[in-house]
Amino acid sequence: MNKDTENRLAKQMKFILEIDKEKNIMRQTHLTGHGRNENDSEHAWHMAIMTYLLKEYANEKIDIAHTMMMCLIHDIVEIDAGDTYAYDEEGKKTQREREEKAADRIFGMLPEDQRDEIRALFEEFEEDATPEAHFAHAMDNFQPLLLNDSNEGADWERHGVNRSQVNGRQKKTRIGSEVLYEKTMEILDKNEEAGHIKHSDK
Amino acid sequence: MNKDTENRLAKQMKFILEIDKEKNIMRQTHLTGHGRNENDSEHAWHMAIMTYLLKEYANEKIDIAHTMMMCLIHDIVEIDAGDTYAYDEEGKKTQREREEKAADRIFGMLPEDQRDEIRALFEEFEEDATPEAHFAHAMDNFQPLLLNDSNEGADWERHGVNRSQVNGRQKKTRIGSEVLYEKTMEILDKNEEAGHIKHSDK
Repeated sequence: MNKDTENRLAKQMKFILEIDKEKNIMRQTHLTGHGRNENDSEHAWHMAIMTYLLKEYANEKIDIAHTMMMCLIHDIVEIDAGDTYAYDEEGKKTQREREEKAADRIFGMLPEDQRDEIRALFEEFEEDATPEAHFAHAMDNFQPLLLNDSNEGADWERHGVNRSQVNGRQKKTRIGSEVLYEKTMEILDKNEEAGHIKHSDK
Repeated sequence: MNKDTENRLAKQMKFILEIDKEKNIMRQTHLTGHGRNENDSEHAWHMAIMTYLLKEYANEKIDIAHTMMMCLIHDIVEIDAGDTYAYDEEGKKTQREREEKAADRIFGMLPEDQRDEIRALFEEFEEDATPEAHFAHAMDNFQPLLLNDSNEGADWERHGVNRSQVNGRQKKTRIGSEVLYEKTMEILDKNEEAGHIKHSDK
């Protein structure tokens, strides 16, 4: 291979090895069967498969490879920035800054064209203004919801969250998919009735 | 949502929860930094991202979403069939039968059209006769190769494999990508010289 290819591939390989660390970034969600905590790469794998299988429920037409790749890479910044729990209001104040710095470092390992492409994909997810980002956010919500529901809402109970907090987060699911939002509300109603989610004004 | 959508989504959700078990199927490969064993879903996540980033090195033009989804689902059958190590010649004798039975059960949870689609994608990977399957196999080899090389070949040493065995497996990488095969041989030469892979006739 020529020198340019050699250099380019070396950068890509360095990035590929760096993101291996995402497998050690733990989330608050637990695996089915009351399993261990889930890590970011597992969550992203699950979201990408769900994107492919549930795309028929997207409110808007989506580019499937684009949405899958967005799901796969959306948490890479957490290698440096850590996972910020959905209901951690203190952590969320500094989340954006921590994640932008991480994006500079990690995506900066790639060749320039791919650095810009993957960075743009990450920013697109964050800005949440395209059909693909809308659906990726629906997946980001619906995936842990299914796991948590399968565990009798143990993660909601553990954190003592109330229905209004959960509903706030689920608003993004509605923008991505009315069908999945309807199913989400049904699942949340059931968990609230069972006492896994605290009652509150919705 | 109407009754048909309700039934269809219920099947999709059942499948999505079932494949969560893939996160507990452990491989022989270890994470970078001499980490713990990797699981199947982490391996698949990594392969799908690598497909997107390294597609320029594919020998033949590939459909990117198709190849990524193939990578993401190719090990789902191991939920029932278990992981068969690349150099386990005894295990490989019954692998095909065990995996077909698993495919019947697990993909059979999906609505019929998706059952057939995902089953076909799995069989396409197994038959390895399309550009997409060729590249997916290159990823299936190149991903653990990079992790293992980053760990000074510890997985090859642990299993006492020789160069001829490793070369045999890497033949598939060449069919998917000449460039990645060239890099593979370079990495293997280095590990053989360092004594991490046993010498043998190539």
